[in-house]
Amino acid sequence: MDIGLVGLGKMGGNMRTRMRNGGITVVGYDRNPDISDVGSLSELVEQLPSPKVVWVMVPAGDITRSTVEELIELLGEGDVIVDGGNSRWTDDEKHAALAAEKGIGYVDCGVSGGVWGLDNGYALMAGGTADDIAKVQPAFDALKPEGESGFVHAGRVGAGHFSKMVHNGIEYAMMQAYAEGYELLEKVDMVDNVTAVFDSWREGTVVRSWLLDLLVIALEDDPGLSKVRGYAEDSGEGRWTVEAAIDNAVPMHTIAASLFARFTSRQDESPAMQAVAAMRQQFGGHAVRAAEEKGIDAAAADPSDPV
Amino acid sequence: MDIGLVGLGKMGGNMRTRMRNGGITVVGYDRNPDISDVGSLSELVEQLPSPKVVWVMVPAGDITRSTVEELIELLGEGDVIVDGGNSRWTDDEKHAALAAEKGIGYVDCGVSGGVWGLDNGYALMAGGTADDIAKVQPAFDALKPEGESGFVHAGRVGAGHFSKMVHNGIEYAMMQAYAEGYELLEKVDMVDNVTAVFDSWREGTVVRSWLLDLLVIALEDDPGLSKVRGYAEDSGEGRWTVEAAIDNAVPMHTIAASLFARFTSRQDESPAMQAVAAMRQQFGGHAVRAAEEKGIDAAAADPSDPV
Amino acid sequence: MDIGLVGLGKMGGNMRTRMRNGGITVVGYDRNPDISDVGSLSELVEQLPSPKVVWVMVPAGDITRSTVEELIELLGEGDVIVDGGNSRWTDDEKHAALAAEKGIGYVDCGVSGGVWGLDNGYALMAGGTADDIAKVQPAFDALKPEGESGFVHAGRVGAGHFSKMVHNGIEYAMMQAYAEGYELLEKVDMVDNVTAVFDSWREGTVVRSWLLDLLVIALEDDPGLSKVRGYAEDSGEGRWTVEAAIDNAVPMHTIAASLFARFTSRQDESPAMQAVAAMRQQFGGHAVRAAEEKGIDAAAADPSDPV
Amino acid sequence: MDIGLVGLGKMGGNMRTRMRNGGITVVGYDRNPDISDVGSLSELVEQLPSPKVVWVMVPAGDITRSTVEELIELLGEGDVIVDGGNSRWTDDEKHAALAAEKGIGYVDCGVSGGVWGLDNGYALMAGGTADDIAKVQPAFDALKPEGESGFVHAGRVGAGHFSKMVHNGIEYAMMQAYAEGYELLEKVDMVDNVTAVFDSWREGTVVRSWLLDLLVIALEDDPGLSKVRGYAEDSGEGRWTVEAAIDNAVPMHTIAASLFARFTSRQDESPAMQAVAAMRQQFGGHAVRAAEEKGIDAAAADPSDPV
Repeated sequence: MDIGLVGLGKMGGNMRTRMRNGGITVVGYDRNPDISDVGSLSELVEQLPSPKVVWVMVPAGDITRSTVEELIELLGEGDVIVDGGNSRWTDDEKHAALAAEKGIGYVDCGVSGGVWGLDNGYALMAGGTADDIAKVQPAFDALKPEGESGFVHAGRVGAGHFSKMVHNGIEYAMMQAYAEGYELLEKVDMVDNVTAVFDSWREGTVVRSWLLDLLVIALEDDPGLSKVRGYAEDSGEGRWTVEAAIDNAVPMHTIAASLFARFTSRQDESPAMQAVAAMRQQFGGHAVRAAEEKGIDAAAADPSDPV
Repeated sequence: MDIGLVGLGKMGGNMRTRMRNGGITVVGYDRNPDISDVGSLSELVEQLPSPKVVWVMVPAGDITRSTVEELIELLGEGDVIVDGGNSRWTDDEKHAALAAEKGIGYVDCGVSGGVWGLDNGYALMAGGTADDIAKVQPAFDALKPEGESGFVHAGRVGAGHFSKMVHNGIEYAMMQAYAEGYELLEKVDMVDNVTAVFDSWREGTVVRSWLLDLLVIALEDDPGLSKVRGYAEDSGEGRWTVEAAIDNAVPMHTIAASLFARFTSRQDESPAMQAVAAMRQQFGGHAVRAAEEKGIDAAAADPSDPV
Repeated sequence: MDIGLVGLGKMGGNMRTRMRNGGITVVGYDRNPDISDVGSLSELVEQLPSPKVVWVMVPAGDITRSTVEELIELLGEGDVIVDGGNSRWTDDEKHAALAAEKGIGYVDCGVSGGVWGLDNGYALMAGGTADDIAKVQPAFDALKPEGESGFVHAGRVGAGHFSKMVHNGIEYAMMQAYAEGYELLEKVDMVDNVTAVFDSWREGTVVRSWLLDLLVIALEDDPGLSKVRGYAEDSGEGRWTVEAAIDNAVPMHTIAASLFARFTSRQDESPAMQAVAAMRQQFGGHAVRAAEEKGIDAAAADPSDPV
Repeated sequence: MDIGLVGLGKMGGNMRTRMRNGGITVVGYDRNPDISDVGSLSELVEQLPSPKVVWVMVPAGDITRSTVEELIELLGEGDVIVDGGNSRWTDDEKHAALAAEKGIGYVDCGVSGGVWGLDNGYALMAGGTADDIAKVQPAFDALKPEGESGFVHAGRVGAGHFSKMVHNGIEYAMMQAYAEGYELLEKVDMVDNVTAVFDSWREGTVVRSWLLDLLVIALEDDPGLSKVRGYAEDSGEGRWTVEAAIDNAVPMHTIAASLFARFTSRQDESPAMQAVAAMRQQFGGHAVRAAEEKGIDAAAADPSDPV
């Protein structure tokens, strides 16, 4: 199979390698001529036999949109565009509709795997028609891990990114679960070596997972995590997951709480807790006065302090 | 009615005044001789006619326990001890059992009102037998607000503090509700004057309350709350409320979340979020490398960054 | 002042009465001729002196949009449309832009008060330019409660509905706070009369509020709430509040949890908890076998059952 | 090594087998004579060489306590009792102190693994002195999985059960994370085959784990989970985890929310949501009246309905 691949950065570059190792002929394009196989998108398209398949692996949002629009200009009836970036599933429907006006197929594909993907394979969640998926299947087979799992044709256009979005939402709450347990183990003086406890959980327990493996690596590098600030970004997918839950009346206590915990982690000051403190101060104005008193309860909090 | 009052601090001192204004003869004792009416607990007890009623208004925990034990020594059959402090309701049963061995009655009373109590009256939630409550009733009547509400005989010993505990748990979540709304109004650039919006809510709205009144006072004193740190203590009662919920399988999402928000507000660093960041760094090690790349996605996040 | 009022249902009808009582000349239009003052929107517009002010009080969404569009056709330079319904603040900007093309002013106004509004006044949160607000001010003055609070010019177009939206979000969490406390008091056998405890809180406590008053009325009508199902709808405003929080990285634990609790209350079956049960069953397959065993632990849970 | 094993139920029976397979001489006792190796605890103790090691594998609480007390009677200086059940870590300290009065060592051991433990090994988290642990080490080595993980000497007495408790708390939130994602995928009509999506995640993704494997098995057995009720018990350990968090001011949003979700899953009716509905009904009383009206908004919700 021949495939065009647009975007040869960290992810795209490794995916080109893995596809080539899997016997796929890849024509890669990148704005950086040092790593690009061709000088332009049109050159990339020219080199592909029909039906042409072009995989877009660029940042979600404007760059994906403009790349897709440019490809729609260049491609024709029966060709297929694959969006492998982190697009919102609602964008997929718009892009697919644009492509369909020229008879071009559209496949959205959520990709998981990071730097491990090159060696271990990428987990792939794809959305589109069976015909369009079939045209990309050899590439999926080359990219996915070797076992039976790791690829799913999730449904119509959008279903791939939707599945990947939910995957990331779950991931947020799983990370938060380990994190809360970690804090409790760190804070209570019961366990001699928190890293050793986490490490022991990697076999035979109910909580064993790849995320646990990663956390143990981090703890072994930096016991007590003194080199890491408790500051966590969030990507669009966590937010979209909660928004989709709200739109569909799905209770989502833990994923939402995980998202909010990341918001909090990035605040130097919490306006909400300033408001709580301010309300308490309205009671506590008297607390200041209490400090001057010397009654039986002078050294302690007011016994009936309402907060 | 005559009553002994132990503890003349911020709360006890004002309660003595309000009871005297209500026609009660109060003998007050405090370790501080400048404000005490008598020199010792035994002197206090001597001055009371039988059946003697002694109201304890000292900090919860050890000081309340030792005061109660001392009073049990000094009092006898038919007398009544009132614990008006912030004791845990489970302590009440123990204290009442001790007192009962000598035929002494026991009443627990949650008191709300703070510095406003002197003028506006104190809300009172009492637990004990009807007979014991009746012996204290004139004091309750003097202390409570003038309207029809503000006093309840909630049930047997412990029911008063249990009710007060739940009151405080509710209070936590109400404060957090206003606080979250405040933060959203502050953060989004839609409203010209957040204080004015809160002030407008004081009449005609569903969210009007005394806590709202207090928040508006605070905002008018300090628009933007720049003088207040987002740091909030918690008292035992919030914690006990959630623990009682857990013991009784009661879902308590908002009150627990409010308590946790206070915990977070007091942390300089969050071990949990350090763990989240450390897990992300295991993905993000490659993010650092990405910065050196110049592909089509060089300036942006990896399109398939799994977090 | 003269004003046109479109929509004379439960809210609009009472607002017409209150405005008329306040000296405003109101021309009301409703699809129902029995309660309408005029036969059509155009007739309504004709009867108003310039600058014409028309208050729209119809359901949010399509009906509001079509009404606004129709009014834009009928009105002209210097006139003002007021949207008093529960529109999303993001709609206001679109409607205002449409109106501005013809030089028509636009004011959005969040209205709180329900059936109490007729007698007690309506709390009003308005957005728009100072000029447009000024044209409507006599109507605001007639509608609002008599005290100093109850009206705010919150900011530009959208700020009124934005403020009302946040108001409703806060309301959700306040209601949930009382509800969680109620459940704990009901479930634990400590308090003889839960209604009496809530009633006592109406004076002197930190949690006193109008919502508490309403809850006490409900509890007095139906102690134990046996006539009420634990089923709660939610309106758009609670959802929009959490979505706005997510868009702006505002942690919103209690309001989101309150919203999710309403979602849960409407489910006959929880797919999430089915999944939890299914995972436990994978452990519990052996639990079935355990029932046939007669070891020392036969009658009890497996001592090391991992869940 | 020789070891006594008390409790040969589902867990204990398999552990006897695995220890014997590992070359340990096991004397097992159970109340059920059909599966017991000896007729009494004293006979078990007699058969062991000194220092005698006895592993208790019976239900936590009263049965563990009485078994430990009986063993303390029978054992002596230098012997070791191991509590492998699901005891609360605070019980361990009490039991260890009792044992220490006779010079008997005490080790607490959290055990994870369920029915898979026989073949795959049991994850073990142990607390106690290094000397006592050393006396049990051959048994730990036989029981644990074959890899490098799966056993940890977590710290002093109590640290084993404390670690296991936190493990279970983490497990709750992980299960809830998958469950919330499952519900969203089920509820939104985007994905053709939810089971296939979960199955695909088992390789190459960030959320791959043993719990995910179990969930996929369950989904393959029963797509849509129609045979499972959304009803989930909780064990003591989830509750203790949140209580320990509260005692130590550790924010624990997701684990607490997971616990509360289980509480909710077991309720036929939610008193809290009855209270919310009752408060809404106080607004909604007028909604009933609205149904009789025929205004422009007659068929829709009141435009300014405050909830």
